[in-house]
Parts: sequence; C-alpha cells; structure tokens
Amino acid sequence: MNGAESLLRSLIASGVTVCFGNPGTSEMHFVSALDSVSEMRCILGLHENVVTGAADGYARMAEKPACTLLHLGPGLSNGLANLHNARRASSAIVNIVGDHALSHAGIDAPLASDIIGIARPVSDWVYTSISARNVGADAARAVQAANRAPGSIATLILPADTAWNDADDIANPLPFASPIDVSHHTIERVAAQLRHASSPAILLRGNVLKDEGLIFAGRIAKHTGARLLCDTFAPRLQRGAGRVVVERLPYFAEQVLESLRGIDLLVLVGAKPPVSFFAYPEKSGWLTPEGCMLSVLSHSHENGCSALSALVEALGAGKDSFSVARLSLPEFSRSGALDARAVMQAVARHMPENAILADESVSSGFAHYGITASSVPHDYLNLTGGAIGSMMAVSIGAAVVCPDRKIITLVGDGSAMYTLQSLWTQAREKLNVTTVILANRGYKVLHNELIRVGAAQKGIKAHSMIELTDPQIDWVSLAHGMGIEAVRVELHAGFEDAFLSAMRHQGPRLIEAVIN
Amino acid sequence: MNGAESLLRSLIASGVTVCFGNPGTSEMHFVSALDSVSEMRCILGLHENVVTGAADGYARMAEKPACTLLHLGPGLSNGLANLHNARRASSAIVNIVGDHALSHAGIDAPLASDIIGIARPVSDWVYTSISARNVGADAARAVQAANRAPGSIATLILPADTAWNDADDIANPLPFASPIDVSHHTIERVAAQLRHASSPAILLRGNVLKDEGLIFAGRIAKHTGARLLCDTFAPRLQRGAGRVVVERLPYFAEQVLESLRGIDLLVLVGAKPPVSFFAYPEKSGWLTPEGCMLSVLSHSHENGCSALSALVEALGAGKDSFSVARLSLPEFSRSGALDARAVMQAVARHMPENAILADESVSSGFAHYGITASSVPHDYLNLTGGAIGSMMAVSIGAAVVCPDRKIITLVGDGSAMYTLQSLWTQAREKLNVTTVILANRGYKVLHNELIRVGAAQKGIKAHSMIELTDPQIDWVSLAHGMGIEAVRVELHAGFEDAFLSAMRHQGPRLIEAVIN
Repeated sequence: MNGAESLLRSLIASGVTVCFGNPGTSEMHFVSALDSVSEMRCILGLHENVVTGAADGYARMAEKPACTLLHLGPGLSNGLANLHNARRASSAIVNIVGDHALSHAGIDAPLASDIIGIARPVSDWVYTSISARNVGADAARAVQAANRAPGSIATLILPADTAWNDADDIANPLPFASPIDVSHHTIERVAAQLRHASSPAILLRGNVLKDEGLIFAGRIAKHTGARLLCDTFAPRLQRGAGRVVVERLPYFAEQVLESLRGIDLLVLVGAKPPVSFFAYPEKSGWLTPEGCMLSVLSHSHENGCSALSALVEALGAGKDSFSVARLSLPEFSRSGALDARAVMQAVARHMPENAILADESVSSGFAHYGITASSVPHDYLNLTGGAIGSMMAVSIGAAVVCPDRKIITLVGDGSAMYTLQSLWTQAREKLNVTTVILANRGYKVLHNELIRVGAAQKGIKAHSMIELTDPQIDWVSLAHGMGIEAVRVELHAGFEDAFLSAMRHQGPRLIEAVIN
Repeated sequence: MNGAESLLRSLIASGVTVCFGNPGTSEMHFVSALDSVSEMRCILGLHENVVTGAADGYARMAEKPACTLLHLGPGLSNGLANLHNARRASSAIVNIVGDHALSHAGIDAPLASDIIGIARPVSDWVYTSISARNVGADAARAVQAANRAPGSIATLILPADTAWNDADDIANPLPFASPIDVSHHTIERVAAQLRHASSPAILLRGNVLKDEGLIFAGRIAKHTGARLLCDTFAPRLQRGAGRVVVERLPYFAEQVLESLRGIDLLVLVGAKPPVSFFAYPEKSGWLTPEGCMLSVLSHSHENGCSALSALVEALGAGKDSFSVARLSLPEFSRSGALDARAVMQAVARHMPENAILADESVSSGFAHYGITASSVPHDYLNLTGGAIGSMMAVSIGAAVVCPDRKIITLVGDGSAMYTLQSLWTQAREKLNVTTVILANRGYKVLHNELIRVGAAQKGIKAHSMIELTDPQIDWVSLAHGMGIEAVRVELHAGFEDAFLSAMRHQGPRLIEAVIN
C-alpha cells in the first residue's frame, strides 16, 4: 500500500469515517485510494469553507471528528474562516492538507506557500508528515489531537510524495485523553458559594447543554434558586418542550449588563466570563457585574457533566424536582406581510420533533430567539465565531450525522452569499436540509452598528457598503442553479405553506423569505 | 477628524483612490468616513476573495495599488487565496484589516484571532496601527511598501479605536523606491553571452511584456536569433496583431522540457528559472535543460525595460527591424457541437481591439492559447498563483481601471463556482465584463492529473470527487440570481451569436458554453 492508503486506513482505524473535501493535483493519490477503502464516506464541497463548515457541523452532532481534504495553502486559506468558527465551537476536526512533494519544495512553484503559517492561527496541532512510512502514525496522532477535550483542530500536512511512496502499516488508534474530573474541593467550594449567594447564576457551555447536563443543572437551579444561562453563541443547545430552560444571554453589551444586573455569584461551567462581541467607544467589554463573584466549576476541557452531577450530590439536590418547558406554540396569523417574527412563529409551530435549527439569522435571530423556546424538542446550533458564511455548511455536517432529523437553516441573505456553494452539496447528497433565507436585502446588523459605534449619519457611500439592493439577489434562481427546489414568499400565509411543504419533504429545499 | 478620516485622506494623498471592501462592525468608522471623503471610490464585494481578486486586477492594469477593506481575521482569511495569486502576480495592494479596539484585546471575544499570523504568509509588509495620531503615517508607509518594485502586498491592521479616536493630520506621501537599473557590467555580460550562444532564449516576466519592453526584446531577438518566451502564467502580456510575438511556455513539465530542448543560454528578465507546476513521481521539477546556461539580466525588482534598452544598445541592434504578429483570424465553422477550440476561435474572431482576456479556463485554455495569438491587439491576464477562483474577481478590478475596454473572462465551471459572487459586483457596478463559462461539468484538469500522478484507475468514489454533475450547475440561473443577463449555448452558431451580442453590449453578460 502507498502512503495515501495507509493514511486513509489509519484514519478509519481511529474512528474517522467521513471526509469532506475539495482536492487538487497534489491530493490525487488520496483520491485514488478512496476506491480501495470502502469505509470512508467522501463528500465534495465546491469551496473549502463548505468543507470546513461541514466538518464543524459533523463534530457538533457526532461528537467525534470528520476529516477534511484541502488542496495546498490556498485550499486551506479558503477554509480558514469556518475553521475559526469550528475552533470557537470546540469542534474536533482533522484537516488533511496536501502539499507539494518534498523534492519540489526548493523550486518555489506558483502554488507553494507557508502552509504551516496559514494553519497555525486556527489549529491546536499542526504537523507535516515527512515519510510515507510514518503517515499512518501521524494520522493516529492527528485524530488523538483533535479529540483532546473539549475538541480541537488538528492539521496534518501531507506532501504528495508522502502519499505516493510505499508504506507498510495501518496505525493503531491512540488513546484519547478523557475530560478531567473536577476535584472534590472545587465541588465543595461551589456548593458553599451557591448556598450563600443571594442571587446566583450558572453559565453553561459545551455538552452540559444536552439533556443529561441540563437535568443536573435543573436540579441545582431548583435547589439554590440559581438562574441558568448560556452564551449568545452556544455551539449546541438542546431545548424545547420537556427540557430544562436555559436563558440565552442577549447579543448587545448593554442588554447583557441589564440581564446580569443584581447577580452576586456567576458559576462558570465550561464557559468563559461573558464579554461583549465588539468594542464600542467609552464602553467596557467585560460584562460581569461589579461585585459579582466569578467561580469556575469546570473549564472547557474538564468534565462538566460529572461536575454538575457531583454538585447535585453535594447540595443534597438529588431528589429535587426540576422545571422544564411546557409545549407552547406561538400565535400565528395567516395574513400580513412577512417579517422575521412571523418567520420564527411559523418555524416554532411547524418544525418537527428533534429538528436541528442552525441559526445564522443574525439581526433577525437576536430579536426572536425566544419564539422557538417552547416548541417541540430540538437542537439549536449557533454561529460560534462570528465569521459569517458558516451555518449553511454546518447544516451539511449535521445532516450527514443525523439523516433522520430535519435540519432547518435560518440564515440572513448577507451571510448566505458567503458560502452559497453549500446548496450544491446539499443537493448532491440529498440532505434533509431546509434553508430559510431571511432576505432583508442588506447587512442589517451593520445598520444598527453604524449608529451604535457613534459613526456619523450615514450617507450614500456608507449606505452602499452595507446594502444588498441594486441588484437584488434572487435566491430562487441561485437555488435552482445548484439543483435545489426553491420558492420566494412575501406574506405570512405563503411562508407557512412553503415551510409546511418543506417539513413534509425529505431532502433539500430553500425558501426565500422576503422580510422588512 | 478621527483616525478613519485621517487614514482615508492619507491613502488618497498617496494616490490610492479605489477601495474594494466588505466591512463589518469594527470598520464602521471607516465606512462612515467615506461620505466625507469624496475622492475614494468604494466597491462592495459579497465575499472577500472578490475583494482581494479585484484589487489584484486593478493593480495589474493601473500599475498602482487599490486598497481593500476587510473585517478582522476571518475577513482577511476569506481573501487570502486571491492575495496569494496577487503576490504571485507582483500586484501592489494595500489591505486595511479592521481589528477589535485595543481595549478589547484582553477579553478574547468570539471574533478575536491572530490577524498578524493570518496576514504574514501572503504579505510582504504587516503592521498594526497603535494610535489614531499615527494612522495617517501608517497608511503612507503601507502605500510605500505596496509600491516596492515590482509590487508588494502591504497589510495594515486597524484596531477600531484607532479609527474612532481623534487624529490631527493627513500624512504626506512617501517616496517610492523606483526599480533599480541593472549595472553596465551585467548588460555587457549578457550581450557577450548572447553573441556566443548558438541557441539562446530570453524568458520575460513583468512589465517588459508590454509594448515598450516587447519592442526592445523584438530587436534583440532579431539581432541574436534568441527565442522570446514567457511563463505559462504571466500576470499580464500584451499580444496580438502588430506586437512582438512571445512564446508561452506550456503547462506540463514534459512539454516545457520539449520546448526548451537544445537551448544553450536562457536569459532571465524579471523571471525565475522555469519549474513545473506540480511534482510527479520520478520526474524533476527543475526544467532548465542540462548544459543550458542560466543568466540573469534583471531580477523582478530591477528595471527590466531599461535593461533591455541598454542591451539593444550594447548589441548594436538599435536600428534593427523586428518581427510582429500579423492579423490572422482562425477559421470558424457555424455548425457543430461546441468544444473549447470553437469557443477560442469565436473569441479570437470577434473580440474587440484592446480587449482584456482574463483567463482561468485551465484545461480548456492550456490547449488553445495559440488560437487568439494573432487576433486584434489585446491584454492577456493569467491565473498567476494557481489558486482557482481568481479571474472573475480580477476582471472587476481591470474593468474599474479600463471602463472603455471590453473584459472577457474565460473560466472553467469548477473555477467559477469558487468566487461566483463576483457576478453581483459586476452587475452592481455595470462593469463591461463578458464571462464565458467553459462548462465541462468537472474539474477536468484533475482527470488528467489522476492518470499523470500514476494513481490507479479511478473508481466511482474518486470520480465523484472531481465531477460537477449530479446536480448539474445551471449557470444561467446563477447569473440571473445575481442580476446578470445570461444565455446557455451548446452549438458553434449559438456561441458565436451570444458572443457577438455580448461584444456589442456595454455592461456585464454571461455565456454558459457547454463543452465536451
């Protein structure tokens, strides 16, 4: 076997069985090897941010890494923004980046670049294979690195000769470092703090936002009166009817400050202290209220669920009941011109049980997040790193992991233009994704920001840099161009009909929801 | 004035008057300042590779830098691939990359990243402004750095508070380092070598491939019998009827070796020694024939035109005639199913004088480059760095510089999917660009490469990673979705009619040319 086959078989031995890729010449041996290795599912993306975003979505739902296959420095560069988001989501990903053969390194060919330099800002682990004999072992180490709790980005650079030369083995998987258990001392400290606080809150992030952790958190909240919070951009949250309710921190700094006012203890479980997304003149970005004690129950690499479980015991709350959301669907009128609120109302009413909402609706979503809170149980995925162009690709990965669940992507038109190639992969793989474009014809979040940063009254030129009119984007045509059924709606009734139709349909759909 | 206005006015004072951008919150003061500074033309791109590719095209035609406006690390990341191409084209570009305010640096907000680390692999100069009082001077230094011969990438990172705080001046432009003249000794050495060589060739790159340099080269060729060559991917070449003919080196290594066989002297003018684009097992990437002497007349930062002029004098060739191409249009039959050859024949016959051909037709273009060689005079722009998704964006910049010339983008469907958002900017700015999609429904260059690298017979999975069928991409719908008139053609006559119509039309058009 050659290095490429050794690499592929070693990845599979370590549990990596899906490859999202866009290969080039230097990856042709890897591509060729695919047909001799049946266990690896390969999915083509027509831009690398589709590839890396899909790997992010895969990791969030599968809780294990997929690999990506990227062509040299430019291919990696194209996927960096969604690797940034993936890293902020603590998603585990193994990037395989082809490079020129080592013999080619000295001649500065047009595609040569500093791949290690490009990889480093988004990678927790970077390594260049230097021999086909070692590439299997390198793959095992890359998977081990990616699995480091809570999930890491590992980038393995694969010179072409490392793929085409002879190799002789399949590497055994290496043990993963499990999340560390929090000390008894920490549990006791937090328990005592919670007992003495008059107005405590617990900020949760990571896999504690799934059912098991939520139930522990719910018991603690019931017992101590603590509020349960999550970040604005939690990577994944399980919510809806029958689940413990977690308040999402709002987006704008002053809203967060208002929300946290009066809290005297903030317990962090896998979360960092709340900060504002952007800086503004004369405003602090540090949002923990003055006088509030910050207390870490668990860091993101520690075992938050076991810590919450131990905290339940320490508090004697093991038999306490806990509150959950009751199914409660919002009102919805069939008449009227569409707006973001009506879109979210229809989504809340008609999404199927266990739907996965992938939210990059930005300005539209900030205001109306609560509308879906008491709908049927579902998973909620957020744009974690703020680099737009993420969630249409994340939906691909989620759909690959969960073929029996409906994925609903809520995405602003500005965001959607970034990685619209995602639609082609959704069509090719017949993924069960409904994309709702919230088409407000601009980067609406920036309208608000122009005012908020104290910038002067915007004039014609400033306006032209944040508007998507002239020409207006026709999302139905764009979707058709990539093989996706689509419809444009401008009224309440039209959206409800289109959304209901999409929910009944197995496979990809797109709805252009024109909103004000 | 604030820092943003100081920056803008200083850029303008240094001759930078076009800004391609996609701003975010941290750039809102810059955007706001645009309306108080009338001299800066601002052009929005809906993905940063559109922005940086447009700046590349601008630099190639204007021979001075535009600036880009990019949002934080992810915005810069999205534009890296076309900065790689621009750097390989020696294009001068000033990137302005917003960053969080310095006060925000310590809190690790979701969009925080290592911007310097991301910038470095594609930048010749990187600097972070630390005060609004200095940002004007920093801008002047960035423009100076970008103008360093033959053209460089300068990246200025602009923390948001550097934009919003008070500034007090507009910086004066700094002197640019002109290209260095080559020494008399070098001229004499090369003249002597040319006199003694039995089979010399001259490899040209940079602005010597424009009329003035070509005439000098033509005289030298006539006098010495030297062949005139350019790289496969010369950034810009002036060619066509009435111009000195330069042979383009072919793409594949064995073709280059064949082409250079028997040469005993290779004079380099702004060019590097020829190397193969990719490495292949058992093949050398170094393509200078054994026994051939390499001789540098000028490096890329030196003045190639004056060196050629001096060489003409040293050889006593100043009054020699020189050969030029005569207008000669290829045959074209109106009947038959379309292929790449027929597309190039129609382009050669019907492109208007002074057209600009921006070529990313990859596999289609390699084979048929010669067909347009004796057409009317035109400029030919190439994909310099091999990162696909370049030339549709490059065409934007070229059209901004040359509103009275027709831009013809020849692009493969695989390439076109990378930066298809370029079409929206072409529509918005009503740019005079005709895009010809050579739709062969796959990454055809990779079909060849799978065989060439000695990879095994490709099977179903390998095939699926390089084919763009299932679903088939409908380029007419995609163009319509972004406000561009478009037509699909499958026959010789249909293409000729569509192309003639586009040539008569002022403004953007797209033709989906379905080829085998």
